[in-house]
Amino acid sequence: MYQDRRKVIVIGGGLVGSLCACFMGQKGYHVVLYEKRSDLRKDTYMRGRSINLAISHRGRVALRSVGLEETVLGSAIPMQGRLLHGKTGALQSMPYDPVFNNCIYSIGRNSLNEVLLNAAENYDNVKVKFDHKLVNADIRRGVIRVQNKTTTEVFEETADLIIGADGAYSVLRSAMLMTPMFQFNQTHIEHGYLELYIPASLGDKMTPNHLHIWPRGQFMMIALPNKDTSWTVTLFMPLDNFTSLRDEDSIMYFFENIFPDAVPLIGKNSLVHTFLSTKPSQLISIKCSPHHFGSKFLIIGDAAHAMVPFYGQGMNSGFEDVSVLSELLDKNHLEVKEIIKLYSEMRVQNVQAVCDLAMYNYVEMRDLVMRKSFRARKAVDEVLYKLCPKIWFPLYNSVSFSSLEYRRCLENKKLQDKIYSLLVGVLLLSFLFVFINILRY
Amino acid sequence: MYQDRRKVIVIGGGLVGSLCACFMGQKGYHVVLYEKRSDLRKDTYMRGRSINLAISHRGRVALRSVGLEETVLGSAIPMQGRLLHGKTGALQSMPYDPVFNNCIYSIGRNSLNEVLLNAAENYDNVKVKFDHKLVNADIRRGVIRVQNKTTTEVFEETADLIIGADGAYSVLRSAMLMTPMFQFNQTHIEHGYLELYIPASLGDKMTPNHLHIWPRGQFMMIALPNKDTSWTVTLFMPLDNFTSLRDEDSIMYFFENIFPDAVPLIGKNSLVHTFLSTKPSQLISIKCSPHHFGSKFLIIGDAAHAMVPFYGQGMNSGFEDVSVLSELLDKNHLEVKEIIKLYSEMRVQNVQAVCDLAMYNYVEMRDLVMRKSFRARKAVDEVLYKLCPKIWFPLYNSVSFSSLEYRRCLENKKLQDKIYSLLVGVLLLSFLFVFINILRY
Repeated sequence: MYQDRRKVIVIGGGLVGSLCACFMGQKGYHVVLYEKRSDLRKDTYMRGRSINLAISHRGRVALRSVGLEETVLGSAIPMQGRLLHGKTGALQSMPYDPVFNNCIYSIGRNSLNEVLLNAAENYDNVKVKFDHKLVNADIRRGVIRVQNKTTTEVFEETADLIIGADGAYSVLRSAMLMTPMFQFNQTHIEHGYLELYIPASLGDKMTPNHLHIWPRGQFMMIALPNKDTSWTVTLFMPLDNFTSLRDEDSIMYFFENIFPDAVPLIGKNSLVHTFLSTKPSQLISIKCSPHHFGSKFLIIGDAAHAMVPFYGQGMNSGFEDVSVLSELLDKNHLEVKEIIKLYSEMRVQNVQAVCDLAMYNYVEMRDLVMRKSFRARKAVDEVLYKLCPKIWFPLYNSVSFSSLEYRRCLENKKLQDKIYSLLVGVLLLSFLFVFINILRY
Repeated sequence: MYQDRRKVIVIGGGLVGSLCACFMGQKGYHVVLYEKRSDLRKDTYMRGRSINLAISHRGRVALRSVGLEETVLGSAIPMQGRLLHGKTGALQSMPYDPVFNNCIYSIGRNSLNEVLLNAAENYDNVKVKFDHKLVNADIRRGVIRVQNKTTTEVFEETADLIIGADGAYSVLRSAMLMTPMFQFNQTHIEHGYLELYIPASLGDKMTPNHLHIWPRGQFMMIALPNKDTSWTVTLFMPLDNFTSLRDEDSIMYFFENIFPDAVPLIGKNSLVHTFLSTKPSQLISIKCSPHHFGSKFLIIGDAAHAMVPFYGQGMNSGFEDVSVLSELLDKNHLEVKEIIKLYSEMRVQNVQAVCDLAMYNYVEMRDLVMRKSFRARKAVDEVLYKLCPKIWFPLYNSVSFSSLEYRRCLENKKLQDKIYSLLVGVLLLSFLFVFINILRY
C-alpha cells in the first residue's frame, strides 16, 4: 500500500472490526473505526445474547500478530475435548487432539471485545467513534455516509481503504448486492437457540475443561465454561418445537425426558422463566462473492461470511480474514485495488468451505456423534493420526489447530473418506476370503 | 378483503406493477401506483434495452381478466415454433405445439407497458404517480417512505396492502432481507447479452412467425419479430468472450465463423458499432421466501423471482402472480394478512420451479437442441403427445400453454423422464432378444 496515502476506515467495532483496527493501527495507517452502538465498556447492562466463543488456532495466530494472544488466553478457559451426555446421564469424553493435546478456549464475547477495543485505542493513529452509524455507501463514487447518532448529523467520508466489518446484516454489503456479478446466498436454518445458565455455585458439578454436548438428534444442548465457574448453556432445536413449549408443564416434561441430568444444574425456576420470557434467536448462514468492490471497498468477518456456530469458526475465520489482508497489505509493490481483488480471490472459496463445514457439523454434533459407525471412524482417524500425524490430518484438527486453507481441509477430508471406504472394503474382502478358506478345509 | 378498508399501494409501474394496478382498480380498491421513472408515454427516447417479450398462456389469462388480451395480441406477432440456424445456414423448424397449434407472441416491452398504464389510469380509483421513488420501507411499523423526485420531498405512506412490483433490485425486498427466516439467493450467470438489430428493410429475408435461434454451445443468438418487420436480435455469451471482442477484426472474424448467415442481415457497420459502443448486460436469477411480510407487505414479479430469460416466463409468471393474488382477494372471508400468507405458501415453490426451469432451458436452447439424443426425445414426446395429449403433456407445453402449477409441470417432466428411460430400456432389451434369437436359428 502506498505510504503517502494511507487512511483506512473500518465499519463496525465488534470482534473482527476492532481487531482489524489494531492491525491497521500497527501498520501506521490513519484509522477511523465507526461503531453504531455506544461504548460497551461504559455500559452496565449485558448486550444481546451470544453463544460463548471458542478461540482456536486461527484466532490465536491473528491475536499473536498484535501481541494480544497471552492477554486473551489468560482470561479464557481451555477445553480439551467434547464431553457427551447420554440420556441416562452416562458421560463420554472425546478429546479434540489426542496426539498434540491442542485445546480450544472458551471466552465471553464482551470481555474479548473490551480487550480488542482497548488495544485499538492504544494506537495514537486509531480513532474509535462510537454512536456513529453507516447510513449507506455510494460505492460507485467511493464514499460512505455516516450518521453521528448523538447530533443526528449525517456526513460523507472516504478513505484509501474502507473495510466493512459490520456483521451479518452488513450495510456495506447491501450496497454491493446491487452490483454486477455479485453472488449472494442467505439461509436461515430452521433451528433456533435459547441461552440458559448454570450458576457458579453449581459449576463444579460439571466436568471441567470440556465443551459439554447433549446430542439428541433433532435437539442439541451445549455448555461452555465461564471464568467465574458458571456455565453458559445453549439449547438448539427446531423453531416449531420452541413454539410448542409454552407452559411450565410442557417445558419440564420436555427437559426431564430429553436432558434429565441438566435440570438440577440449570434449576427449574430459571429454566421455566427463561423459556417463558425469551424468544429463541435465529441462525443465519451467508455466502457471497466477491468480497470487494471497485478500488477500495472490502467486507470481512460476518459481513462476508456469516455462518452457523457449530464449528466454532465464525470468529476464528473472521480473525484469519484480518491476518490474510494484513499479509497482502505488507506487499508494498501492490496498490489497494490489487490487494482487495487478490484478497477476494484467495478468500472466497475458503470461507465458503467453512460455512459449509459449519452447516455439516451441526448434523455431526447433534446426531452422528451418537452413531457407532461415526465413532468407529473417529477411532480409526485417531489411530492413523497417531501413526502418521503429517499424512493423516483429521478434519477437525486441520480446521481448528492449523492454518491450512479451509478448502484444503475439506479436500483432505474427502480424500480420507475415499481411502477409509477402500480400507473398509479391503478389510471386509479379507475377512470373507479367510472365512471361505476356513470353510473349505 | 374487508370492503370498508381498501387502500392498495403498488410500487413500480413496470409490466407487472401496472397490470396489478388494473386488477386492483377493477376490484374497486383505492389504488396508488408509485413509479420512480417519468412517464414512458411522454418520453421520446427508448429507455433501457430489453430482450423482446414472448407472451404465452399465463400472461394471456391475466390480460383477459382485465379485458386487455385482444388489444395486446393485436399488436403482437405470433411465433409458431423455433427456427434453428445451423452453422452452414441450414434451417430447421421445431413447432411449439404440433397438436393444438398454440403459439407464443412477440411484443415490445415499451408498447405493452403503455397499454397497461393507459388501462390502469382509466380507472377513476387508480392514481399513477410518476417520478415517485420508494426510499425505504419500515416494514415493522407498516409504512413506506416515498420521495417525490420533482420536489425532492420525502413523505410517509401506508395502506391496507402494499405490493412491491419494483423489480429485480426491489427496495421493498431489501427491507424484508433483514427479517427472521427470510431465505434469499441471488445468482448472476457468467453469460451476458447484447442487443442487435435486423432492420425492417431486410426483415422479409427471415422466415416469419418463428423465434429464430442460432445455438452454438457456449454462445447463442436469438431473434424475435417486431411489428414493423424488423427483428430484435440478442446475443448471449460468456462475459469473458465479450471482453475479447474489442476491435472490428475480431468482431467480424467471430461473427463470420459462428453466425455467418446473420452478418448480411444485421450489417457489418451496425454490428461493429453496437459491439464497440455498448457494454453487455448481465443476467440475474433471484429466489426468495417468503414473499410477504407481516400483515400487509407483498412482493410480486421480478422483485420476488427474477429469472434468466430462457423460458420466456419472466413476465408471464409475474402476470400469473397477479391472477393468483386476485383470486385470493376475491375470497371475502379472508383478511389481507391471511391472504398474503396463503399467497406466499402457494406461490413460492411454483416460481422457484420456473426460475430453475429458465436456468435449465438456457442449456437446452444453446446446446442440447443440437444433439441427436435430444431431438429423438423431442420426437417421442411429440408422438406420445399426439396419441394421448391428456396424459403425455410435454414440459414446454405445460409451462407455456397451460396454467398447470409450475412445480407440477416439473414433476410431470421428471415422471416422463423415468418412463422414457424405461421405454428405451425395454426397447433395447427387445432388440437384443430378437437379435439373439436370430443368431440361434
